[in-house]
Amino acid sequence: MSPTRLPSAGFSITIRVSVVADASAIGRLTTCVGEAGAIVTALDVVDSDPSRVTVDLTCDTADSTHADQVVKALEELDGVEVRKVSDRTFLLHLGGKIEVTSKVALRNRDELSRAYTPGVARVCLAIAENPEDARRLTIKRNTVAVVTDGSAVLGLGNIGPAAALPVMEGKAALFKRFGGVDAWPVVLDTQDTDEIVNIVKAIAPGYGGINLEDIAAPRCFEIEARLRELLDIPVFHDDQHGTAICVLAALTNALRVVGKNLADVRVVVSGAGAAGTAIMKLLLRQGVGDIIAYDRPGALHRGLADLNPTWQWLAENTNKSGYAGDLKGAVRGADVFIGVSAPNLLTGDDIATMADRSIVFALANPDPEVDPRAAREHAAIVATGRSDQPNQINNVLAFPGVFRGMLDAHAENFTEEMALAAAQAIADVVGEDKINPTVIVPSVFDTRVAPAVAAAVRRAAASNGTSANFGGVDADEDTSFGAPEQ
Amino acid sequence: MSPTRLPSAGFSITIRVSVVADASAIGRLTTCVGEAGAIVTALDVVDSDPSRVTVDLTCDTADSTHADQVVKALEELDGVEVRKVSDRTFLLHLGGKIEVTSKVALRNRDELSRAYTPGVARVCLAIAENPEDARRLTIKRNTVAVVTDGSAVLGLGNIGPAAALPVMEGKAALFKRFGGVDAWPVVLDTQDTDEIVNIVKAIAPGYGGINLEDIAAPRCFEIEARLRELLDIPVFHDDQHGTAICVLAALTNALRVVGKNLADVRVVVSGAGAAGTAIMKLLLRQGVGDIIAYDRPGALHRGLADLNPTWQWLAENTNKSGYAGDLKGAVRGADVFIGVSAPNLLTGDDIATMADRSIVFALANPDPEVDPRAAREHAAIVATGRSDQPNQINNVLAFPGVFRGMLDAHAENFTEEMALAAAQAIADVVGEDKINPTVIVPSVFDTRVAPAVAAAVRRAAASNGTSANFGGVDADEDTSFGAPEQ
Repeated sequence: MSPTRLPSAGFSITIRVSVVADASAIGRLTTCVGEAGAIVTALDVVDSDPSRVTVDLTCDTADSTHADQVVKALEELDGVEVRKVSDRTFLLHLGGKIEVTSKVALRNRDELSRAYTPGVARVCLAIAENPEDARRLTIKRNTVAVVTDGSAVLGLGNIGPAAALPVMEGKAALFKRFGGVDAWPVVLDTQDTDEIVNIVKAIAPGYGGINLEDIAAPRCFEIEARLRELLDIPVFHDDQHGTAICVLAALTNALRVVGKNLADVRVVVSGAGAAGTAIMKLLLRQGVGDIIAYDRPGALHRGLADLNPTWQWLAENTNKSGYAGDLKGAVRGADVFIGVSAPNLLTGDDIATMADRSIVFALANPDPEVDPRAAREHAAIVATGRSDQPNQINNVLAFPGVFRGMLDAHAENFTEEMALAAAQAIADVVGEDKINPTVIVPSVFDTRVAPAVAAAVRRAAASNGTSANFGGVDADEDTSFGAPEQ
Repeated sequence: MSPTRLPSAGFSITIRVSVVADASAIGRLTTCVGEAGAIVTALDVVDSDPSRVTVDLTCDTADSTHADQVVKALEELDGVEVRKVSDRTFLLHLGGKIEVTSKVALRNRDELSRAYTPGVARVCLAIAENPEDARRLTIKRNTVAVVTDGSAVLGLGNIGPAAALPVMEGKAALFKRFGGVDAWPVVLDTQDTDEIVNIVKAIAPGYGGINLEDIAAPRCFEIEARLRELLDIPVFHDDQHGTAICVLAALTNALRVVGKNLADVRVVVSGAGAAGTAIMKLLLRQGVGDIIAYDRPGALHRGLADLNPTWQWLAENTNKSGYAGDLKGAVRGADVFIGVSAPNLLTGDDIATMADRSIVFALANPDPEVDPRAAREHAAIVATGRSDQPNQINNVLAFPGVFRGMLDAHAENFTEEMALAAAQAIADVVGEDKINPTVIVPSVFDTRVAPAVAAAVRRAAASNGTSANFGGVDADEDTSFGAPEQ
């Protein structure tokens, strides 16, 4: 078992067990499960007779292999019979996690005549005459397309559109739960940039916003930039901008805790893909001291040849000292490490070489760039993307409120001003009286977050009528990555 | 006011009126509205003082012009002040008619971890390994895309995707209300056949079925045929097959009432577009005596040159006598008239020339091919597409149950056998003890219809494992329309 793999609800199973009904029977079961490293979360008696009892024993396990081990341990107990193992996660997904419901009762002819023919014809004609009315009289008022090609799903890679669907459904559920937004999964059976752009452009009339999701870099940059040019609704690539907003919010509060200024710190970013690039652009926009970016070519610096446009831009705009060494060398003396890359690149010893009061955001999921328990022995603040660790940096803090605000404002673009306002709003939810090294971001269940973000985004939209492009390559010249907005 | 335009709930308005509070004040208002030709459906007192009363007066009007006349008539009354006029249809459409709701509560971390990360990753991997599991573990189990390019919306014509959205939302609401199906509007900003085919193919992984809607002929035939070849989920063009199913159901019962056999009757069909063509193919499949089809070239017959492939096929497979005269001449002596075309093509006098015990389905909406009141003076049975007339032939009788059945059966195709089974199921809902000239189809609110249709479709799916193509042009040779399945 990997040190960062703890039992979690994501791997919760329910085991139906029949056992001889002596006084210590149930105790033997729970002890066995506990000794196997799982955590019992519920115990329900299903049936009994004078000699036996059947219980549903629900427990969190670390992963599928661990779950099998727990079941095996129970089977080996004397007098115990395992009847059935239900995977609660799979049960929850059966039949899908979202549904389409009617806001109109359609109980009788009167309601049918107004919602559908013949009454609906007048509403159609009103929109035909004044297309902007679609934002008032249709679902466009409140809908977001969650678009993916299934090419970079979670940490699972290129698993395709059908296998990406459970994530997009979950995202849609989160949109509604936290932002009151009606989001719909659009999983595309193509990974061709031109086709994706054409498809999203074509389906756009039905939506008030586009959330790009889990599309591999560098394709995602061009898709986003071209759609921004083509569409009159906001286009937001959550892996880029949602992550960047949350990281900036967390870093704002982390720097407050350690008493450093952004302008003075040196940041090492591992991973210059969609998320890393967006994070760095937002940090540069906010005047960060310096950044060294890592990806497959190593430290990005001016001396490298044949970089793709994104990396070329980063090489020219980061790494003031032209550092060309390895990642472990780069973190030596650095104030901040931000990982959006791969598991276990660093050890606790590496973190020990960072500057005093260092900050570590190890966001690779599910296994971070450094074991957070080891990192915490040396860094002042550690954050991860994991829900079972303190300081979880989770995009759920950003995207529901960002889209809520953009839909309310009838925004035509997502702008850098909105991103900065959203990050500040998230940071500010953690009050001065609450902030500490283990609480630099609000809980994802904090109901103040989405309304605060939405309000900040609405204000930014209002102060910036025709919003500039933000992020991604420029559609007119897709050979250059474009400078961040100044 | 056209004779077929009667006040309806589709043009219902609520007028807020302040009036001097004498004993007959309210009476004067309702009398005035009645004399103006509208129907008062509700009267609610909003406010009052010792001398005046303010009421919300809700009434059905015939159309927007009529509504204006009613308001004007009220304004001209002594002591009456019109404060506000609300259009109830527009109020009902505000913000859209459907929403996306989560089936998972997401109340706490445990639920979040199973619905989204990290738990969702295992569900994704399961589908990546076994793609067919998407029908079990995702919304694909129960979703239908309602796809339009906005080119032939209701009777309104080519009004484009945004203006088509209220209809598609209404359709989605009906899908849920009557079939328990989660339908989502896909309104496309393109009317290019290749693009539409590519887009629908690309979005298909998220759906268990495709409902094409309000796409102009002949483009709709090619789109449907090509998608049937490309996709492993059923493709159903409601304007064609939904209409054909309902017409066959209604005609089955109408013939029962008048005591004629399908094999003996001569049918005249006005309109050889999407609906008309599908109707004729289904009637031919069922062995109708003869059909004469009308469209822009007149009566379709073998002597015509330069017909499009659809019309060419019809010319070769209908009109046994080679009749080449006008529509009025064709209906002379005909047993059945089916109109899916344009208003007011025939008069009551024309219907009088039909065979004894004639059947008239005048389905053009909102204004039928012949005034149904005039037709009823001569025909034994008259049906329309209107909700304010008896015998409404409404596709709502078919599509919710057809898709319910196909989704339940995990059908990969919509087949002609399903269409025939669905038509019979709809017809059979009207029992022998209920059937009469004014009741040849069930009410759209009859809750027995959709389950009966779904069961019939499931049976047809089960008896026909690999279902054949049905209707539309053949994708391999889009120059010929293809013969109906035998």
